[in-house]
Amino acid sequence: MSPTNVALGSSETTAVALSQLIAALGGDLLGGSEIRIARIAPLDEADAQSISFLANPRYQAQLATTAAACVIVSPSMAEAAAARGAAIVTPDPYLYFARLTQWWAARTRPSPQAGVHASAIVSPDARLGQGVEIGPLAVIEAGAVIGDQARIGAHCVVERGAIVGDHTRLAPRVVLGYGCRIGARGLVHSGAVIGADGFGFAPSKSGYVKIEQLGNVTIGDDVEIGANTCIDRGALSDTVIEDGVKLDNQIQIAHNVHIGRNTAMAGCAAVAGSTRIGANCTIGGAANIIGHLVIVDGVHISAATTVTRSISEPGVYSGPYPFEENSSWQKNAATLRQLSTLRERVRALEKK
Amino acid sequence: MSPTNVALGSSETTAVALSQLIAALGGDLLGGSEIRIARIAPLDEADAQSISFLANPRYQAQLATTAAACVIVSPSMAEAAAARGAAIVTPDPYLYFARLTQWWAARTRPSPQAGVHASAIVSPDARLGQGVEIGPLAVIEAGAVIGDQARIGAHCVVERGAIVGDHTRLAPRVVLGYGCRIGARGLVHSGAVIGADGFGFAPSKSGYVKIEQLGNVTIGDDVEIGANTCIDRGALSDTVIEDGVKLDNQIQIAHNVHIGRNTAMAGCAAVAGSTRIGANCTIGGAANIIGHLVIVDGVHISAATTVTRSISEPGVYSGPYPFEENSSWQKNAATLRQLSTLRERVRALEKK
Amino acid sequence: MSPTNVALGSSETTAVALSQLIAALGGDLLGGSEIRIARIAPLDEADAQSISFLANPRYQAQLATTAAACVIVSPSMAEAAAARGAAIVTPDPYLYFARLTQWWAARTRPSPQAGVHASAIVSPDARLGQGVEIGPLAVIEAGAVIGDQARIGAHCVVERGAIVGDHTRLAPRVVLGYGCRIGARGLVHSGAVIGADGFGFAPSKSGYVKIEQLGNVTIGDDVEIGANTCIDRGALSDTVIEDGVKLDNQIQIAHNVHIGRNTAMAGCAAVAGSTRIGANCTIGGAANIIGHLVIVDGVHISAATTVTRSISEPGVYSGPYPFEENSSWQKNAATLRQLSTLRERVRALEKK
Repeated sequence: MSPTNVALGSSETTAVALSQLIAALGGDLLGGSEIRIARIAPLDEADAQSISFLANPRYQAQLATTAAACVIVSPSMAEAAAARGAAIVTPDPYLYFARLTQWWAARTRPSPQAGVHASAIVSPDARLGQGVEIGPLAVIEAGAVIGDQARIGAHCVVERGAIVGDHTRLAPRVVLGYGCRIGARGLVHSGAVIGADGFGFAPSKSGYVKIEQLGNVTIGDDVEIGANTCIDRGALSDTVIEDGVKLDNQIQIAHNVHIGRNTAMAGCAAVAGSTRIGANCTIGGAANIIGHLVIVDGVHISAATTVTRSISEPGVYSGPYPFEENSSWQKNAATLRQLSTLRERVRALEKK
Repeated sequence: MSPTNVALGSSETTAVALSQLIAALGGDLLGGSEIRIARIAPLDEADAQSISFLANPRYQAQLATTAAACVIVSPSMAEAAAARGAAIVTPDPYLYFARLTQWWAARTRPSPQAGVHASAIVSPDARLGQGVEIGPLAVIEAGAVIGDQARIGAHCVVERGAIVGDHTRLAPRVVLGYGCRIGARGLVHSGAVIGADGFGFAPSKSGYVKIEQLGNVTIGDDVEIGANTCIDRGALSDTVIEDGVKLDNQIQIAHNVHIGRNTAMAGCAAVAGSTRIGANCTIGGAANIIGHLVIVDGVHISAATTVTRSISEPGVYSGPYPFEENSSWQKNAATLRQLSTLRERVRALEKK
Repeated sequence: MSPTNVALGSSETTAVALSQLIAALGGDLLGGSEIRIARIAPLDEADAQSISFLANPRYQAQLATTAAACVIVSPSMAEAAAARGAAIVTPDPYLYFARLTQWWAARTRPSPQAGVHASAIVSPDARLGQGVEIGPLAVIEAGAVIGDQARIGAHCVVERGAIVGDHTRLAPRVVLGYGCRIGARGLVHSGAVIGADGFGFAPSKSGYVKIEQLGNVTIGDDVEIGANTCIDRGALSDTVIEDGVKLDNQIQIAHNVHIGRNTAMAGCAAVAGSTRIGANCTIGGAANIIGHLVIVDGVHISAATTVTRSISEPGVYSGPYPFEENSSWQKNAATLRQLSTLRERVRALEKK
């Protein structure tokens, strides 16, 4: 089997007429409502059965060359788009595209199957809401509460007293630890571990003595948590993830971290214990934030940046070391080790 | 559901009198032994039913303002503490606090339930010690040995010939690979993978040829391993984690690494193949240590540091790139690429 | 239990005569074909029952001191090796060693057991090839295809329509998402998540709106994927991993990344969305590559390097910040924040 581009989710589904799409999602249609769409594609990969979108003016030139049957555009691009074929005009094409993907997925994916799989192990002391789906081999412990229409994937473990909100979905193989809770309309991807112990020990003469972690994890509504991401339980009070937070894969959130509303973090980011991140922040991939800091609302951290101090002003902050061809890097890195000395030498020259 | 601070582990349990606490943990009680404690809290979050502690002199000012019913303090703070309410005096308040959390957890959490869950799949050729608890859907293969009072969580896989020491607990969904062993009183969190193959290939004209990894992983006593942490099996001999080592979440330990006694590593740290780390080291979060190095005992690596050379002297070593507001970072990073040239220019000026 | 060096895979197996080994693997044997080998070991750990190898001339001095019964060497070392004991002469000793480990593993490990474990949950609408092994508690959904001789470990989930190629093995607890495919002779380690959603959201006034990820993951033949590594499904088209790629543990591959043939990536590396990496590249541990870049064939990225721009020339590229003893680091890092100013000062001095 060689790697070929098979997009089951898009290309193998029945096509739809643009009129159906407009009926579902709104927008002003310029051009043929009878045109049938078989897939969603970027401008440069689109074919005559594709719908595409122009969200970033940077790609405007592609409008002239795309083979897309229809392009979603903003009002300022309407004329240019209509000149080349069908167009849907909407104030925010990217947002329209997002809603289109949701509508598309709902059409093409199997519907949830309410019910408890025969192989799942559900405590008689757990409470299941209406329309709940519990997958094969899932374990739901005593005192757990699963909200209405929630879906618990295969091999998940929802420990004692944990709470899953309405319409929240746990993909296969998620652990939601005892006493932890996630709100409504959440999505947790495979391998995520919510509620493992925070990392706390007291040193003693005979080695480290464990500090039992007595808090939980509290997660708000509309939160997405990526694959293999970990969120530790608090030491005494809870680790808190507010409404609308989006966490990518393999993120590490240590105990007692607090992440504000609608903050998004890209893959492999890590936040050490007790740090408080504000609302509407973005944290780039592989960024690290050390413990006990306060980051205000509206801070944007570039990828691969290590944040070692609190940030009290909104803005963009960066810190990746500039990479280079290896021999240049070696020379510069060697000099870097003498940088403060170099400054002294400049100072001495200035004094002459 | 909005994120609210619910600490099931602490606040919803029956309160205890200070006299009970002293009876269990020792310490000199100043003030009312009949005072009832409902939770453990930091000084600044404590209320009239809380016990708190003052371990770091930096927080001494909070002693005057805390609402805690009782504060654990060192002898030097006894007078100041007693002036404001009950106090427990002990030489090491932080250690006392750690023991208090253990006692508290033992009181408030369900007791282990010895026995093998009906859904677990235990080979008749595995050996189970006394009082062992095997959770739902766990798999224990032939030749595995589970020590007395050990607890194997739901969905764990203990492969053939693997050994779990007495009183060790695997949280749900841990893989302990064939032939690997962990000692007594260990704790492994969910998603940890112990004994996946080390990463070894020989290049050939037709691509990489796998080097089968023939060693195992050997882990000592009193070791804690965090969620989604990986420890690879050795290529020929074993990867070794000595007694008392504490590993946080999402750590990567490559094949044939050796970690000395009582060394602690914070989340997302990574150690490449065959590196040897001494005893009593601390490795900060997201620090990387490249392969084939030797780090002596008593070395402390700051967070987000990349260690590229062996370290032969105890001490603190650091290396995160200093982050800045983005426009400053851009200017400085651009200059950094010409740093060795800048040094040449300074040299030239000095020669004038 | 103290950590002792027990290598079940090697030391506890029945010894073999060198003649058997040569019969299986070829090479020119100098010295006693009746010598029996009980283990494979590095030169400096070998004993009188060990076979070892000399692949790197740097270790040539160990040839004189090793206790190995037999050493695998290149023709140029044949004389020196034979002077001290048995030797196997072969053009590429490291490759020979790799094949030896494979032969050794095949001898000493249990054979695959074709069949479906009674506890596995296999949809009647899945297709299983010949000689397939399905482990305990694995879940195979409708429309999934498992190739001939493939092995699916305990607790794996192969979702609807996913395809596993012939002779591919999934270790325990792997998730292969719906519509994703992996080719022949692959190996996926525990905890890997293939096909979680890519991280895509459109901002809106009421928070982020999810972009459903409609692509899949397509993985070629002869690919190895490490423990807890994540490969996200594409947004519209697929994320693609070509033939012969080797990924270590805890790697993050974002949506729509394309990785070329025979590229290898070490642990904790991360590649952000839509980046294209060429063939025959090596990416060091904990290296980060930001999104939407193009890296040509034959590029080698050092460990802990952050790649922020496309790379159009083969070569070695580096970027870890040089670590130092902490007080030096502090001084140099502080100066670094004024680096562009320092350059201005040098410029001013030069103008004088």
